[in-house]
Parts: sequence; C-alpha cells; structure tokens
Amino acid sequence: MSFGFEELSIAQDDTTDEAKQTLNWNEIKTKYDDFHTIDWPRDLARDRMRHKFIKGVRQDSPLGMFYGIWDAGSGWICVLLVGLAAGTVAGIIDISARWMSDLKSGICADRFWLDREHCCWSANDSAYKDNDCSAWTTWPEMLHYYDKNFFYYSLEFLFYVSWGVLMAGTAACLVRTFAPYACGSGIPEIKCILSGFVIRGYLGKWTFIIKSVGLILSSASGLNLGKEGPMVHLGCCIGNILSYLFPKYGHNEAKKREILSASAAAGVSVAFGAPIGGVMFSLEEASYYFPLKTMWRSFFCALVAGVILRMVNPFGSDQTSLFHVDYNMKWSFFELVPFAVLGIFGGMIGSFFIWANVKWCLFRKSNKFLGQNPIREVLIVAAITGAIQYMNPYTRKSSSALIKQLFDRCGPEDYMEDLCDYRNKTFTADKIDDNYHTGQMGFGVQTAFWQLIMALFMKLFLTIVTFGTKIPSGLFVPSLAMGSIAGRLLGIQVESFVSTLQSSGSSSWNCQIGKDCVMPGLYAMVGAAAVLGGVTRMTVSLVVIMFELTGSLEFIVPTMAGVMFAKWVGDAICKEGIYDAHIEMNGYPFLDNKGEYPYSTTAFEVMRAGTDQAPLKVITNGKMTVGDLESQLRESSFSGFPVVEKDDMVIGFCTRRDLESALRAARKNHTNVTTQSMVYFTPHSVDEEVPGSSAGPISLRLRKVMDMAPLTVTEQTPMETVIDMFRKLGLRQVLVTRDGRLLGIITKKDVLSFMREGSEL
Amino acid sequence: MSFGFEELSIAQDDTTDEAKQTLNWNEIKTKYDDFHTIDWPRDLARDRMRHKFIKGVRQDSPLGMFYGIWDAGSGWICVLLVGLAAGTVAGIIDISARWMSDLKSGICADRFWLDREHCCWSANDSAYKDNDCSAWTTWPEMLHYYDKNFFYYSLEFLFYVSWGVLMAGTAACLVRTFAPYACGSGIPEIKCILSGFVIRGYLGKWTFIIKSVGLILSSASGLNLGKEGPMVHLGCCIGNILSYLFPKYGHNEAKKREILSASAAAGVSVAFGAPIGGVMFSLEEASYYFPLKTMWRSFFCALVAGVILRMVNPFGSDQTSLFHVDYNMKWSFFELVPFAVLGIFGGMIGSFFIWANVKWCLFRKSNKFLGQNPIREVLIVAAITGAIQYMNPYTRKSSSALIKQLFDRCGPEDYMEDLCDYRNKTFTADKIDDNYHTGQMGFGVQTAFWQLIMALFMKLFLTIVTFGTKIPSGLFVPSLAMGSIAGRLLGIQVESFVSTLQSSGSSSWNCQIGKDCVMPGLYAMVGAAAVLGGVTRMTVSLVVIMFELTGSLEFIVPTMAGVMFAKWVGDAICKEGIYDAHIEMNGYPFLDNKGEYPYSTTAFEVMRAGTDQAPLKVITNGKMTVGDLESQLRESSFSGFPVVEKDDMVIGFCTRRDLESALRAARKNHTNVTTQSMVYFTPHSVDEEVPGSSAGPISLRLRKVMDMAPLTVTEQTPMETVIDMFRKLGLRQVLVTRDGRLLGIITKKDVLSFMREGSEL
Repeated sequence: MSFGFEELSIAQDDTTDEAKQTLNWNEIKTKYDDFHTIDWPRDLARDRMRHKFIKGVRQDSPLGMFYGIWDAGSGWICVLLVGLAAGTVAGIIDISARWMSDLKSGICADRFWLDREHCCWSANDSAYKDNDCSAWTTWPEMLHYYDKNFFYYSLEFLFYVSWGVLMAGTAACLVRTFAPYACGSGIPEIKCILSGFVIRGYLGKWTFIIKSVGLILSSASGLNLGKEGPMVHLGCCIGNILSYLFPKYGHNEAKKREILSASAAAGVSVAFGAPIGGVMFSLEEASYYFPLKTMWRSFFCALVAGVILRMVNPFGSDQTSLFHVDYNMKWSFFELVPFAVLGIFGGMIGSFFIWANVKWCLFRKSNKFLGQNPIREVLIVAAITGAIQYMNPYTRKSSSALIKQLFDRCGPEDYMEDLCDYRNKTFTADKIDDNYHTGQMGFGVQTAFWQLIMALFMKLFLTIVTFGTKIPSGLFVPSLAMGSIAGRLLGIQVESFVSTLQSSGSSSWNCQIGKDCVMPGLYAMVGAAAVLGGVTRMTVSLVVIMFELTGSLEFIVPTMAGVMFAKWVGDAICKEGIYDAHIEMNGYPFLDNKGEYPYSTTAFEVMRAGTDQAPLKVITNGKMTVGDLESQLRESSFSGFPVVEKDDMVIGFCTRRDLESALRAARKNHTNVTTQSMVYFTPHSVDEEVPGSSAGPISLRLRKVMDMAPLTVTEQTPMETVIDMFRKLGLRQVLVTRDGRLLGIITKKDVLSFMREGSEL
Repeated sequence: MSFGFEELSIAQDDTTDEAKQTLNWNEIKTKYDDFHTIDWPRDLARDRMRHKFIKGVRQDSPLGMFYGIWDAGSGWICVLLVGLAAGTVAGIIDISARWMSDLKSGICADRFWLDREHCCWSANDSAYKDNDCSAWTTWPEMLHYYDKNFFYYSLEFLFYVSWGVLMAGTAACLVRTFAPYACGSGIPEIKCILSGFVIRGYLGKWTFIIKSVGLILSSASGLNLGKEGPMVHLGCCIGNILSYLFPKYGHNEAKKREILSASAAAGVSVAFGAPIGGVMFSLEEASYYFPLKTMWRSFFCALVAGVILRMVNPFGSDQTSLFHVDYNMKWSFFELVPFAVLGIFGGMIGSFFIWANVKWCLFRKSNKFLGQNPIREVLIVAAITGAIQYMNPYTRKSSSALIKQLFDRCGPEDYMEDLCDYRNKTFTADKIDDNYHTGQMGFGVQTAFWQLIMALFMKLFLTIVTFGTKIPSGLFVPSLAMGSIAGRLLGIQVESFVSTLQSSGSSSWNCQIGKDCVMPGLYAMVGAAAVLGGVTRMTVSLVVIMFELTGSLEFIVPTMAGVMFAKWVGDAICKEGIYDAHIEMNGYPFLDNKGEYPYSTTAFEVMRAGTDQAPLKVITNGKMTVGDLESQLRESSFSGFPVVEKDDMVIGFCTRRDLESALRAARKNHTNVTTQSMVYFTPHSVDEEVPGSSAGPISLRLRKVMDMAPLTVTEQTPMETVIDMFRKLGLRQVLVTRDGRLLGIITKKDVLSFMREGSEL
C-alpha cells in the first residue's frame, strides 16, 4: 500500500507454478523430532505434490519420462532389494546360530566349520540317530575322556553352562556398548513406528549390525528366546536403510511406512518360511496404514525373501516348512473338545505370562541390582538357564528341535525314544512292526510325561525372566515350545484314554491308534498355536503361519479351534496381548486401530480448553508481533498452534516447526523484520486495514506456512467419531469449534489418555 | 413461558435414561430407501448405543446377563450358520449341476440318478478311461444306434445342442419371471452393497432360490460361464437372510455388512475350496468396511463352509483342491521370462475382454432385438455355443474338466491322448515307459495345438457375449480356461524349444523334459492366473486362490510373476477391472477405496453452492413454519438439509427421513400443530425470544431429530482430504463452511462425479 510495507511470503511446502521450476524435491524433507508422531495427511499430500511435479516433468522431456518410469517402479525395486537382503541375512543368521549353538556340546573334529548335522552327513556315518555320530566330538571327548561317568557329565555340564553364559554375556555387552535399541524383540516398537511414531536410530544400521550379531550369539546361548521377533525388526532395519536409496520413500515418513510394512512381512516370511503368513502378520498385527497396493508389494517382498532363504537353504533340507509333519490322518469331530481345552489352557497361560512378564519388567526397572546393570542380569539368567536346562533331556536341546520332536509321530524308527515307548509293542528283529504305537503308556512314555511337565514349568519360568532382558530375544519359539509340550501331554492322555476305551470293547472308536486317530503330534501342534495365540492374541495370521509352518491344510480346523478359544479366554482375562502390554508399559503413543470404544462422551468434554488463568495458546492474526510469537514458541512446548481471527474465529493451523523455520528465515534474510514486526496470516486484500503500514517496522506475512484447512469438529461431536477420525485419517490434532469459533483442541495425546481412562472404567 | 406455548420434542434415535426403559431396540430400524447409500457413522453409532443399553440391562438381572452373552456371541453363531448353509448349498449345486451337465451326453442306464463318474464307479467297470464306461449310455445308444457313423454323431449333436438350449432357456425364464436380480455374477453389485449401497431384494430369498436353481441349469447348459461368481452372490444372500435371525445385524445395515463380508469369503471358499483365498478376496476385492474382527470371523465362516463342502464331497474325491496337481518339480529361473510373457498376454487379453464385453453390453441395451427379450438372446447364445463347442474336443467338455486336463502332466497312462502324443516315445506292451514325454511334438500334439488355438478364440468370443446375459453366470472359470489354453500352448512351444536345444547338445539344460523341467501344465496354471488377473485385476487373493486351488506351494512364484505382469500391463491399458467397469457402466455410486487421486482441487471448487437464482436448500432455524418445511420436502429431492441460524451459521444437519417422520408424528399426535407453527431446532433457553409465544399457533421443537455434529470442512480443504474422509468414514455428505458459515455442500454423488471427470482428464 505504501512504501514502508513489504510483503514477505516464506514458502515452505509450496507448489505454485513458479515453485515447480526451482524445487528440488530431494531437498525437501520434513524432519520430525525424536519420539514424535508424524503427520500422515500432510506427508501423503507432500507425496501427491511430488507426484504431480514428476508428471509435469514427464511431459517435458524424454529424460523426464524415464524419470517418471523410474519413480513409478522404485517402490517395486525397493521391496525387491529388501526381499533379497532379508533372505540373505536370515540365511546367514540361521547357519551361524546353528553352528555356534552346536558348539555348546562339541565340535566337528575333522571340519570345525560344520555344525553337527552337516558334520555327520559329511562323515557319511549312516548309523547315526538324532544327529549324533562319531565324527562329532563332544568337549569331554576332545579332552580325551571317553568314559561316560560322573566326571564326563560334569565336564559336559560345565562346557554347556559356560558357553551359554559366554554367548549371552557377549551379546549383552555388544548391545549395551554399541546399540541399546538392539535388545528385545522389537515388535512393540515396530508397531508404534508403523503407526507413525518416530524413534531415531531404532531402524538404523548400527542397530541392524549389532542385532544380527547379537541374535546369533543369543540364540546360540541356549536361553529361552526365539529369533523370529528380532527377524521382523531386522527386516524393518533393512527396509529403512534401503529406503534411503529412494528419496520418494526415504524422505517421506508416511511413504516409508509402506516399505516398512512390506519389510515386516518379509521378516516373518524368513523367520517361519511363511510368505502368506508374513503378509497377514503385517496386516493384522504390525501395520497401521496398509493400502492394498502395499499388501501386494508386501506379498512380493515376503515371497522374494522366502525364495532367497530357500536357495541359501540353511537347514540343509529341501523342506519348505520349518516343522514339516509327515502324517496324514483324519481327526474326528469329538477331538474338537480336547482342542478347545488346549485353547483355554493357551489363553490362561498366555495371560499369566503377560501378567508375570510385565510385573517382572517393572520389578527390573525399580530394582537397582538388576536394572542398573543389564549385563549382570543377562549373565545370571544365562547361568541359571544353562544349569536348569541341562538337567532335563527335553530342555537341553534347542527349542526348535524340541518342537520338531513333539510335532512328530512315533514311527517304527523311533523305538529307542522314551516318548515313543508304548506298552504291548511287538518287536521284529531290532525294528518293530507296524503295530507299535499302541496308545498304552509304557515306562518310557511315563518318564517322558513327568519330564515334559517339569520342562513346561521350567520353560514358563525362564521365558518370563528372559523376555525383556537386554539382548535380542523373541518369544514366538518359546511360546510354541511351551504349547507343544502341553499339547503333547494332553495328546498322550487322550490317546491312552481312547486306547482303554477300545480295549474295553467300545465300538465307537474303530480306528487304529498311531495310524488314523488321536495323534499326539497334532495335539502338540494345536497346543503350540493356542499358547502363541494366548500370548500374542494374533488370529488369522497365526493360523496361516501354523499352516505354512507345518505344510498341512488338513489340520487347519483344529489349529483354528485352539487359537479361537485361546483368543476368547485370553481376552476375557486380560484385554491386551504381550506387545500391546509392552507398548503400554513403555508409554508409547500407540493409537490402536483395532478395538471398539463404546463411550458416550462428546468432544467438548475431552478437549483441552483455555481457562481464564491459562488461556489456550493460539496465534491471533494481526495482533501478534514476531517477538510475541518467538516468546510463545519458547514458553510452550506444543507442536502447533491454531491461528484465529478476532472473536476466536479459526482461520488455520500452524505447526511449531514451520513457524520456527519461517521466523528464522525471515530474521536471517530480511534485516528489516524486527521483533516489533506484526505477523499476518491472511492474504493481502484491499478492504483490510493494515496497521502500522506507513511508519512502523514492516509486517511479516506467513500465510504460506499456515494450513488453511485444519480439521475441525463441533463441540457436540461424539468422541467415537473423533477417535475414528484420528485413527483413519492419521491426524495429530483436531480443533473443536462452536459456530466457527475456537473452543479447544484435542491432540492425539488427549485421545490416548482419554481412551486409557475409559478402558479402566 | 406462557400458556399457549408447549414444547414438543420428537425423539427418534434417543438414548436418554428415560428412553432406556421403554425402548425396544428390535423395533428401531433405520430403513433406507432403495438405491440409497447408508449412513455408516450413524448406523455404527446406533449399534454403540444398543451395546451400551445391553450393558445397562446386563448389570440389572441375571436374565440380562444371559442376554448380554447371547448378544456377544450372536455374531459368531450367525457366521457359523452362514458357513454351514453355504457349504451345504454349494454341495447340492455342485452335485446337481454335474448330473445335469452329464445328461447332455447320455444317462446312467441302471441308475439314472448318478452322474457319469459315479455311474462308472458303481458299475465297477475298471477299464474305463476318462470317465467313459459301458454303464454310461449315450443318447444315440439309448435309441439303439450303436454304429458311430454320421447319423450317430448328428443325433448326439442334436441332443447336445438342444439340451443346452433347453437348460439355458429354462434358467432365463425363471430369472425373468421370478427374480430379475438373479442374473449375472452379482459381484459388481455385491461390491456396491458392501460399500453401503442399498438394493432391495438383491439379497432376498427369491433371488437366492432362483439363482440357485438357475445356476444349476446354466452351468449344465454348457455355456461359457462359471458358477464361482454367483456362488459369492449366493453366499451373501444366505448371510443376508440369516442376519435377520439376529436383530443386531438384521436391523442395522452397517453391522449387516460385517456378516455379508464374511459370507462373501464363504462364497469364494466353497467355490474354489480356498478358505484363505476367500478371506483375501473379501478383503481385497469385495469389502469396504473390514475391521480385523470381521476378518477373523470371515476366516471362521469360510473355513466352516469349506469343511462342510468337503463332507458333502460333491466330486467324490478326497482331494481338497479343485485342480490338484500331482507333479513336483523345480522350475528354473530362466522360465520366468515365458511366465512374464504369459502375464503380458493375460493383461492384454483381459483388457480386450473388458473393453469388448462392455461394448457388447451397451450394444445389447440399445438394441431392440436383444435388449427387449433377454430370453431370446439367451436361447440364441446357447444354440450358437452348443453348435460351435461340439465341434472341438476341447470345448465340448466342461470348462473345469478342460482346465484339469491342461494343468495335468502327461503321465505314462495318458498315452492315448492327443495332448500327450510326443515323438520318439518308447512303448512297452500297451503301456509306455518313463521316457515318454520327450518334448518333441508328435502328430497328436500338433493337432491338439491347432485345436487349442481354435478353442481359445471360441472361448474368448463366447465368453464376451455370455457374460452379462440374463442368467446366473460368473467368469472365473471361463477366464481360467482361456488362460490355461494359452499357457499350455506356450508351454508346449517352450518345451519343444528346450528339447531342440538339448538334442543339439547344449549343456545348460541338463534336466529331463516331462520330469523336472518345462512342464506345460505349469504354464497352463500360470496362464490361467494371468488371464484371470487381467480380467479381474485381483492380486494377492488371486495368487492365494491359485495356490489353494492347486495345492502346490512350489509354484507360487511363477503364479505371482504371471499375475504381476498381467496387473501391470492391464492397468496400463485400462485402469479398471471387469467388475469396476460394470459398476461404472451401471452407474452405481461406488466410491473406490483403493485408488489414489492426485488432484489439486479444493472443496470450494467441487461443492454445490447456492446461487442467487437457486439458493441452497437449507432449513433456517426459527424462520420456517411447518408448512414451509413440508413444501420444501415436497419440492426438492435431497435426502437431507443443513440447519442454519441467521447469517448461515451451521448448527446441524437433518435428514429428510427424520424430518418427514417427525413432522408426520407431530401432525398426528398434536392437533394444535398447524401449518403456521414455527419450527425450532435449538434448545429452549431463557435468553432466547420465542416469537408468537402467547397467541399464535404453538411452535414445534425438533432439536432431537437434528444431528448436532455434522462433519464440516473449510473451503480450502484439498479434495484429496475430502475424498479420504468420504472413503474412510463412510460419509454421505459434508458441509463446506467459511468461518462457521455455510458455503455449500458436497455429497457422495458430487465426489463420484468429480472423480469420474478427474479420471477422464
């Protein structure tokens, strides 16, 4: 209007035509602070603008066209790379962990770099059973003690325990020294990150390296932990690292989540050899924003990872499934009753596990002896674990070997095993004939029965104290192990019951035990699924994973029955799975998009409103100077402020970050912007009176950093609708208005604390 | 205030405490008009209120507690019933269709109620091949013509064609007379219904009965159609009918969609024997509102349906998968190239099919001869189909038998088939030894090759004219058939190419053809998936269905490669799958929740605003009489009106239905409400002046029928955000405001037409 007035527009996320020419999209990154939540609508809008920009470029030149195609394909290339890397890494970890785990008991005398199974294979020792052969030398044998006397076993015990303690201690030291985020399973944090939470370094390269090495060490230590959960974390690390090769994903947190969702699927895929299960896991448990395009890419990623892992072939077998079952029998409908019992047991033990583990974690935090020195805790747990587990033949072996054994049927070749020592068996030479698995418990089965009960309690206790220590540790495999023990126990009982019925002449059971009815291995499988379901509260994904894990479609109904009852019983006892419990324990701002919240509160009752003493922190258009704004930014810690006109009429919303950078830029680039400069957020129009236009300091226009369309709700809006908007649109805050006037503000934090209070009522 | 004033509050969806006592929730049904869209947030809110009410009752009495448990379990019971019913119905349809289809060629002389396969089984004729045996009597044989001369074949031809025409004509008559909605596949309509569209009677019992019978007839007619799509429709009919047993679902359209999603999954499950694929289909293709609870229930429902179908065992085999493949071989990475070629072909032929089918459907509509008499059209198509298909041995048999044959490998037992007539085969007695499948095309394979090419063109042409006729008809199986033909053709070529390479001494192919490399059956499988992918644009669900259909995990990567290329190429040619194309052709208001729309328009540019000539139809609080409102309702057809104060300040939104019923009730129950009564939507407060309080007609208060928290956006909101809100929150309209003042309104219809225009740009 007059000389003294100069309009300064600071463009941040600008897409006007003139900006198109100069904008280099790679440079525009919205950085979020650590432990902050990303702004989904804004990040996605940014991506749409980028897309539009590329479309514009595409029409201009052939190079632009090539760029456009590259851009469209980069998502696929990225997930392809993630799949390749995840498969390779998983293969290396599997092989190394296996070798180091076998070192606990001995070494391959001729070829030290082989694990026990390959050692025996290469030695061509065909008579070996259960992977034991002469080429494999136990540690006492290395020291030339061959008599299996007390001293021999003491020596073996010593090696067993100290190797475990050494491995676990090294893992703990590595984690503590180099990457504190590498501990635990990582799934609770992945869930939060996928829902939009930012934890710097959690998916970084150091975490990745240390977690890989630590995972090998910790699974070799013989502790009660699995490497499946950490594998998901590793997958996401790979996704995060590789996404930086593609600025479209690396520099847009919302888009990056698409890659991370696919990576999580790949992680499950390589952990269990279950690509479809991986996608279902990512959909059901991990992901938050999961458009169908992402699902298809996740499937691709999971499949590539699975194929690569199969090519690496870490287990030396061509089996696609980890715990392949080779029996093919029909279960009878009556058996759904014991399966349901297993489900109920799974729900109960799962809930107990969650409760005890959370209590233990809280105790650890408050306890000086354990909390301040996590390495000490790991050493103690490793020592106790080693000492206890050595005593029991079923816990001495690795959890996955135990699961494999318990899932298996008793074939004629297993006559030496306790678990298959039934009565009334008929021998033929040193083999036994088909009528072997009689169902009547022999002395061996009875011994095994009590040993398994002991093993179950030991595993339960040890897993509770292990999950949450500062080494990489998952709980899929320990849960499966507990469940398979419980299932096998019940299976043996049901088998013996039916066998008694049959021998008493009941005709309703005209099937042959061990052939086509009451297979204890099937009970173990159902029990495994039930306990894992009780602990994690997964449903569809768990059934699909179990199906892919065992490769048997026939048993999908029993598995489902078990999982269903586990879920019902578990939810009745405590509502949250272990991951959600840990999320709540750690206070992460995770807005569950699954539950339903039947409240009848309105937005008005929840919103944070201003009082006379502490008015709501807002920016009043044309009434505040640069100095006012700067002091408001200093004095408050809100991440954004509503912009209002006089009469509290809302005109927009301005984030702290944008405001800060705009003010900084204005101060730097325009020396005549002073503390007294008035700040305007409205466009310069004729009918508007600009005060101080002629003489005073120039005024600053910040219209472009303001979001002119903040989402608003009226005070009467029910909270269900508000929560729905937060969940489905990924909001950070919503403004509550009455007749266009600002009444208050509801942030994600308010919603979370409201939901927490509500669930406690 | 004074004598003449009486406050009338008409409560509709009320939940105040006094209402609790008198409210019978079963009576409260929000009825929607035919071809209207449901109001998701409102229906879900209604369900939350119901839930709260039950919670209240639960605490009062033990009976209430029982009621609460029943209420919580009713969803599971409902899907259980749906699964049981769907499995049974599918079994009956399969058996009947098979029997009637076989009647085309002959009859079982001894036991007329058996189909060919069971007839031959029961006759104990062990020498039969390809389901042909002496007990099965062809029609010419029934008429005592045994010489296979020209007359014999003419007779057979006559029976073949006339039986097909008879079946198709009966189906068409049934559909036309009793249930016009029973025609077609039903999937486009199911998609719309699941997205909230109401089509009365589309899922009713008449549609169900006629579609079941018509499906048996039409699949027996030999037309190029599948019964898989209609099975999904039947599943949804069952879900809809059974949901009325549970008022929670039957009387709440939004909640009913949960049951319908599960029913759709069950439909796919029984159609293909693929429970996991069914859930993925429901998730990816059919459903709109799919919370995780629904996914788990859908899985349960699909599984129950699948188990029941297996118990009914319509195909007389214990095979779980429909087109079980019995070969187990490794494919080499090089073969991904021909698989990709198949994918590209699938995308191209799929797009061509969509284009041609839509054109044909439009032609039918505009053409008097066909359009006005759908029965005539069906008869003509059936006659042509029968006449053409009889000529070719590969089209004469049913599509699923053809697919089965093409998926199969050439075993030693198939030496009689043309398709397996390779050169250089070595005979041993009348069997041939292992070195049979040489890869060098023999005379038989060459004949088959040309016949298959002809069959491909015939199938393509016939499917284009068949899909869309007025009989129950799906296109899964015809698409699979086309794809398997194309795949087998390419497979034979690749095989012969590799065989030539091998015989020329190339060492890179040291595998044995017919054993472990280049299996034409695998190519047929990939081709089938690719064409189906090109036609429907399904991705994950298609791969999972193919996997469950063939029961082979090994071939999941080739299938995926084919589907992926089909999707890419198809999307590049035309963006929409066949179902979306039909939705658009029929003008259904389907708001796709999958695509991304990179527009840069604001709500202001799209909204319907008032002009001076035609101001926006609004209700002004306190300025309109009952008569004004009634005439506004008569004169306009909008389904709701914003309620504003003076100055266009928005205070709420009122639907036509609520307003109409409230006015009617007021007129009926309160004789002193006249046309001159003023209508108020605000609460009665002291500082408010009520005009005409002492003498005039009493005023009417309708606050309770007004939604006090309508969703509003500011004029500057980008349309992406608005579309996102419509999609994710299931809105029907949104109000556009500036500073709390109403500027315009955006309805779902506006969004749809905006998106349609946008996609044409």
